[in-house]
Amino acid sequence: MSPDTLVSWLDLLGTFVFGLSGAMLAVRRDLDVFGIAVLSVAAALSGGLIRDMALGATPPAALATSSYLLAALAAGGAAMIAHPRIERFTKPVMVLDALGLGLFAVTGARKALDYGLEPLPAVVLGVLSAVGGGAVRDILVAEIPRVLREEVYALAALLGAAIVVIADLAGLAPTPAAMAGAFAAAAIRILSVRLNWKAPKAPRRRD
Amino acid sequence: MSPDTLVSWLDLLGTFVFGLSGAMLAVRRDLDVFGIAVLSVAAALSGGLIRDMALGATPPAALATSSYLLAALAAGGAAMIAHPRIERFTKPVMVLDALGLGLFAVTGARKALDYGLEPLPAVVLGVLSAVGGGAVRDILVAEIPRVLREEVYALAALLGAAIVVIADLAGLAPTPAAMAGAFAAAAIRILSVRLNWKAPKAPRRRD
Amino acid sequence: MSPDTLVSWLDLLGTFVFGLSGAMLAVRRDLDVFGIAVLSVAAALSGGLIRDMALGATPPAALATSSYLLAALAAGGAAMIAHPRIERFTKPVMVLDALGLGLFAVTGARKALDYGLEPLPAVVLGVLSAVGGGAVRDILVAEIPRVLREEVYALAALLGAAIVVIADLAGLAPTPAAMAGAFAAAAIRILSVRLNWKAPKAPRRRD
Repeated sequence: MSPDTLVSWLDLLGTFVFGLSGAMLAVRRDLDVFGIAVLSVAAALSGGLIRDMALGATPPAALATSSYLLAALAAGGAAMIAHPRIERFTKPVMVLDALGLGLFAVTGARKALDYGLEPLPAVVLGVLSAVGGGAVRDILVAEIPRVLREEVYALAALLGAAIVVIADLAGLAPTPAAMAGAFAAAAIRILSVRLNWKAPKAPRRRD
Repeated sequence: MSPDTLVSWLDLLGTFVFGLSGAMLAVRRDLDVFGIAVLSVAAALSGGLIRDMALGATPPAALATSSYLLAALAAGGAAMIAHPRIERFTKPVMVLDALGLGLFAVTGARKALDYGLEPLPAVVLGVLSAVGGGAVRDILVAEIPRVLREEVYALAALLGAAIVVIADLAGLAPTPAAMAGAFAAAAIRILSVRLNWKAPKAPRRRD
Repeated sequence: MSPDTLVSWLDLLGTFVFGLSGAMLAVRRDLDVFGIAVLSVAAALSGGLIRDMALGATPPAALATSSYLLAALAAGGAAMIAHPRIERFTKPVMVLDALGLGLFAVTGARKALDYGLEPLPAVVLGVLSAVGGGAVRDILVAEIPRVLREEVYALAALLGAAIVVIADLAGLAPTPAAMAGAFAAAAIRILSVRLNWKAPKAPRRRD
């Protein structure tokens, strides 16, 4: 399997896993089959849609072929059928979600560099690609997005995107850098959940 | 009246009705005159704005002429003046809203096909055009969007968009297909409200 | 200092002040350092991002250079370090926020005119540029946006954008018109806060 084919498959896997996060939330909120489909698609595709609309890359990858939509809808279907079983697999779902986060961060940063963005904007667009879908998903059910509530979620995406951009500045080969970035982002995310890491907050006045 | 002129008028009518839904929500939430204007415009134009930004069709139709904005603001003005009277006409407002939903679904899917999108993405963009304005409207007042709460809302849009795309695949004339799609979507929506249809949910564990 | 340099500096100042509004909200909501960074960037850049995506001006100004991101992140850092001190300066922060509102309204309307939009859409896009960042900021923490809750917030932006567009129709020089528009918008906003102005609401039935 060539690296490109691998990345395409991982990208579809990331889309499926993000779609699953939307579908599971929809089931928990007791939404019907169309609500499940809407949240699956929103969670899986919004990050990439925002990225491509910001870059002027139209039609966006998420709509240029049917495969991303099919992956998102397949996740919705899986949650419809097997919701209680998936709920029990919290650990594998969390690991896959971390992998999706890392993959979306590196592919977002890579695409931003390919469109000529400077390093800092490219990192930010990578983070936005990775956390945007989850943010839209949570906003749709009137919740504060996980990226704001959870420790070390944006940080993991930031690390993945930064590795891609720094490797690009250093003239390193893009594919291994993307792999390293996605792996590092996923590892940090998984470790932070397992070890319950906390990020620092602003010092506050005592009341 | 030529079919194109008819579609333009129906499009403006759909914009007005969607604007009315935003304005009536703003009045119910006790917002002031600017809040009413903001919600009218957001409800009426967001769906088309998202559609056109995703397609790279800039400037978006909603901003390329003043007529859509005027229709949305006229809806805000009508709600300001005649709010209690409009509240009493729930049935005609619901029927017009269903017609707006159908019209936006078919014009969204049609525009996506014209921009070269594949069938499934074209259907999804049609649905997004139809339900996006209402979603932005509800998010702005921190509510879960109607498309997630109400039975058979996304389905009606899906049916309208699918009829347009399937007719296109079958090589049928676009104008009658759009008319049929908008009519079918509106009919399904109205029937579902009158007959209180429920869409299936995912099976859940008993607690 | 040339007018263009002045406008660039004022634009960065507006970005910083809007970023500060996001960062202060994040600190009040007890978010961690990444949540503060996300809300700073969202509040400071979303309005311009939406404006540029709607105009097809890609990459958007907010991502075309690093300076806007740095200004937004600097605001996040300032809030992290000096949150209690900034809280005490409510009056200067409100004045700077009013200035940011005016600046974003006039630069948004100006850019819309430069891209060939008609007068009414140009005014609306100016308002959207000015209030969009705050709306995204508030939606991210599941609050009804300030533009809908606060009296005379959208009106101030509307006035600034309208002055730019009317001056353009009258063939007046753009730079003084932009200065006048930003000043008028900021003045109206500050006066409305100091004098506690109320905008009219729709007449309601008594219960």
